Amino acid sequence: MILNLEHIGIAVKDVKNAEKVFTKLFGKQSYKVENVASENVSTMFYKVGNVKVELLEATNENSAISKFIDKKGEGIHHLAFETDDITAEIERLKQEDFTVLNDPPKKGADNKMISFLHPKSTNGVLIELCQEISEEKG
Amino acid sequence: MILNLEHIGIAVKDVKNAEKVFTKLFGKQSYKVENVASENVSTMFYKVGNVKVELLEATNENSAISKFIDKKGEGIHHLAFETDDITAEIERLKQEDFTVLNDPPKKGADNKMISFLHPKSTNGVLIELCQEISEEKG
Repeated sequence: MILNLEHIGIAVKDVKNAEKVFTKLFGKQSYKVENVASENVSTMFYKVGNVKVELLEATNENSAISKFIDKKGEGIHHLAFETDDITAEIERLKQEDFTVLNDPPKKGADNKMISFLHPKSTNGVLIELCQEISEEKG
Repeated sequence: MILNLEHIGIAVKDVKNAEKVFTKLFGKQSYKVENVASENVSTMFYKVGNVKVELLEATNENSAISKFIDKKGEGIHHLAFETDDITAEIERLKQEDFTVLNDPPKKGADNKMISFLHPKSTNGVLIELCQEISEEKG
């Protein structure tokens, strides 16, 4: 089941430059920087009330973020929804004809298992499903 | 001050078709349909845990949604953040060199006063500031 919006991912060319903008916008500092080598991205997180905002910069040309910016420019990249059981949710959405890109889910940033749905099945919106890795599993 | 993410706006070609997709995705029905004549949009709202998701369909070619879809295709259109005092927040952000598109704020959907920030000042992200219209003012 989808529980909450966990974070919004924003593709930027340069996290350090974007940090100046979003720190002014939100009136607060980011709380975390994380390099996710498996995804070829450098990330920065803000907590804004009920959600997190994740800035994403490509660390090389193989990154999905690099391709996204080439095609569409900087902007909102994905919406990540927290699930109570990501494996069950992937099964449910496959049966509903969504195109699941990561089955089984993979390890993402921020200590989470994640899986993306292809935007062609969701009106152009890249959706990430996520679930915090519990201590037993992690 | 920015308090919370109030909703995410998603530009779609046809709300009725998109409704089928998002009702399956979220595993629940939309709770409201609203036509916003001043914005030339027809909207549909879902409540997903901590946030609302607003589907937006252009009702004519003058709609910003129509222009957005022509340029970028369907997808995430804007992020709307709830403020405690939208007028004060507009002042603060102008002083921080953000480009405020609606000053004073205007009446939007869902009984709110709203103002947009131009995406050129926010790394390509169209930001809406909003504040619920109180009974005294409304």
